[in-house]
Amino acid sequence: MSTAFHTSAWQGAGRRIFMNEVGTRDGLQMEQAFVPTGDKIALVNALSQAGLSKIEVTAFVSPTAIPALRDGEIVMREIERRPGTVYTALVPNVRGAERAIEARTDELNLVMSVSETHNLCNLRMQRRQSFASLRQVIATAQQAGVPVNVSLSCCFGCPMEGEVPQAEVLDWVQRFADLGVQGITLCDTTGMAYPSQVHELVRAFKARWPALGLTLHFHNTRGMALANVLASIDAGADRFDASIGGLGGCPYAPGASGNACTEEIVHALQLMGYDTGVELAQIVAAARALPELIGHETPSQIAKAGTRWDLHQPPADFADIRERALARA
Amino acid sequence: MSTAFHTSAWQGAGRRIFMNEVGTRDGLQMEQAFVPTGDKIALVNALSQAGLSKIEVTAFVSPTAIPALRDGEIVMREIERRPGTVYTALVPNVRGAERAIEARTDELNLVMSVSETHNLCNLRMQRRQSFASLRQVIATAQQAGVPVNVSLSCCFGCPMEGEVPQAEVLDWVQRFADLGVQGITLCDTTGMAYPSQVHELVRAFKARWPALGLTLHFHNTRGMALANVLASIDAGADRFDASIGGLGGCPYAPGASGNACTEEIVHALQLMGYDTGVELAQIVAAARALPELIGHETPSQIAKAGTRWDLHQPPADFADIRERALARA
Repeated sequence: MSTAFHTSAWQGAGRRIFMNEVGTRDGLQMEQAFVPTGDKIALVNALSQAGLSKIEVTAFVSPTAIPALRDGEIVMREIERRPGTVYTALVPNVRGAERAIEARTDELNLVMSVSETHNLCNLRMQRRQSFASLRQVIATAQQAGVPVNVSLSCCFGCPMEGEVPQAEVLDWVQRFADLGVQGITLCDTTGMAYPSQVHELVRAFKARWPALGLTLHFHNTRGMALANVLASIDAGADRFDASIGGLGGCPYAPGASGNACTEEIVHALQLMGYDTGVELAQIVAAARALPELIGHETPSQIAKAGTRWDLHQPPADFADIRERALARA
Repeated sequence: MSTAFHTSAWQGAGRRIFMNEVGTRDGLQMEQAFVPTGDKIALVNALSQAGLSKIEVTAFVSPTAIPALRDGEIVMREIERRPGTVYTALVPNVRGAERAIEARTDELNLVMSVSETHNLCNLRMQRRQSFASLRQVIATAQQAGVPVNVSLSCCFGCPMEGEVPQAEVLDWVQRFADLGVQGITLCDTTGMAYPSQVHELVRAFKARWPALGLTLHFHNTRGMALANVLASIDAGADRFDASIGGLGGCPYAPGASGNACTEEIVHALQLMGYDTGVELAQIVAAARALPELIGHETPSQIAKAGTRWDLHQPPADFADIRERALARA
């Protein structure tokens, strides 16, 4: 992606961008309604068929911790595996990793926060405790030959602490890079990222670890998700988390938009000439089917407004309007 | 703004961006509820005090055409005039121009569409009829020494016709430039603009008319408003319409977001180091007062989620969480 430093992000020019769907995990885990297992499998299959590069299918956590995802094993075993799609899952510990590997998960996604306060609130551990635990998970994955990605929360700010220094973010990346993980996701957990900050952090990451996989995870809480994606691309990134329908969200901003919305990001990138490999019509259809599954509307603007290509008929009296205008000429 | 071609749009670096508030006209005209005249005046005054560069206060149209703005004269006469803010109004014809000038409007904003179908639907005239009519309005304004801006609808696509060729957009700009207007607004009337298209059109405009005022008017219908603003800045633009609370919208996409939201755009630009001259806290307060005036929520993400600087308290049991974590160490 060294060309990204020389080509304007405003013109996609056919460049490949990889979309990682997180709605079935990061989205559904927040929902009150339990989405039936068969519907989850059908949704993952639909997203596969639409061409998503990676899908975070589920989480292998305690069923009491996240009851919405208590059917992780069945879902992961019964989805159709499309060649070219990577099926990943969140695992919090060695037990989760063993379950995920047993269910033939292609890649494990591990999570901790770069903010001490957020890590304590979210994971009930100090960061060093999380790191020690994840180190064991990584060893387990490596023994099984399964790739590991680490999602670092609060890389663009902590909703309780405020700023997180870039050097501290990069230190945590270094620790996981030293353990030989395949990828890192820099997560904007509560919508605090802004484009200039994103541009700087992505440039610093790409300069220091040109071969380490980099994914960006944005929330649209304050309307900046797409701009942050474009700033990331301009700085050399090419892989993004997004959530169908914009599912998921931020417990600190009820009512606000959640994750970057897959169909909004794909729609914009496709218009700009990027190649996401995703069939837009198929993900729009999947997004429009979500309210039936989860019992409420989603924040997706594309589900509401349609795509730019969806033209409208003139009003029924258009012929009359034109006649009257011509008569005045 | 020639520096914009050499400096990355991702870093504002103190550059001045001018924000033109259109909510009190373009927003309120869509509302079912009649906002009392005193509340309109108070809103315009609050927006003035917050530092908006320009405010489209009202419209001088037939009170039966837009009853929501039937108090245009009183509002324009009774607002406080903050030095440095330009108070503009929409005028559809010579009669409107005379009323606006009589009420001491600083600048007249004229509207027509570059799409024949949209112009017929929206203004009940062919484009050439609109142009002939606006030419008279421009003459009236010029006789009175009042500057004129022309807002061209559908410059980034027509929701009924589809694509509008860039050459056609530029032809209409040329006709008004030839009449000596002070400014042109390229309007994305229904949220069809996308960043690469915006970048190209703004570059073409700035190359051909470096001294003609250029404003961009985006809608957030498909989530691209902020990205389009940044693409415009990158191509040399520095003036944007936006609407407090994201008021207004697109009759073709009910339920979707409307105009680019003033506080969302200002919030993002301020974070990026641009100088908008706007006090963010004051416009957030104004946006949060809107539901009381209009009887429904607005699409503003900032009104819902707060700004990036609004930190949250850790949960009440945080001390316990930390104690337990430390005890495990």
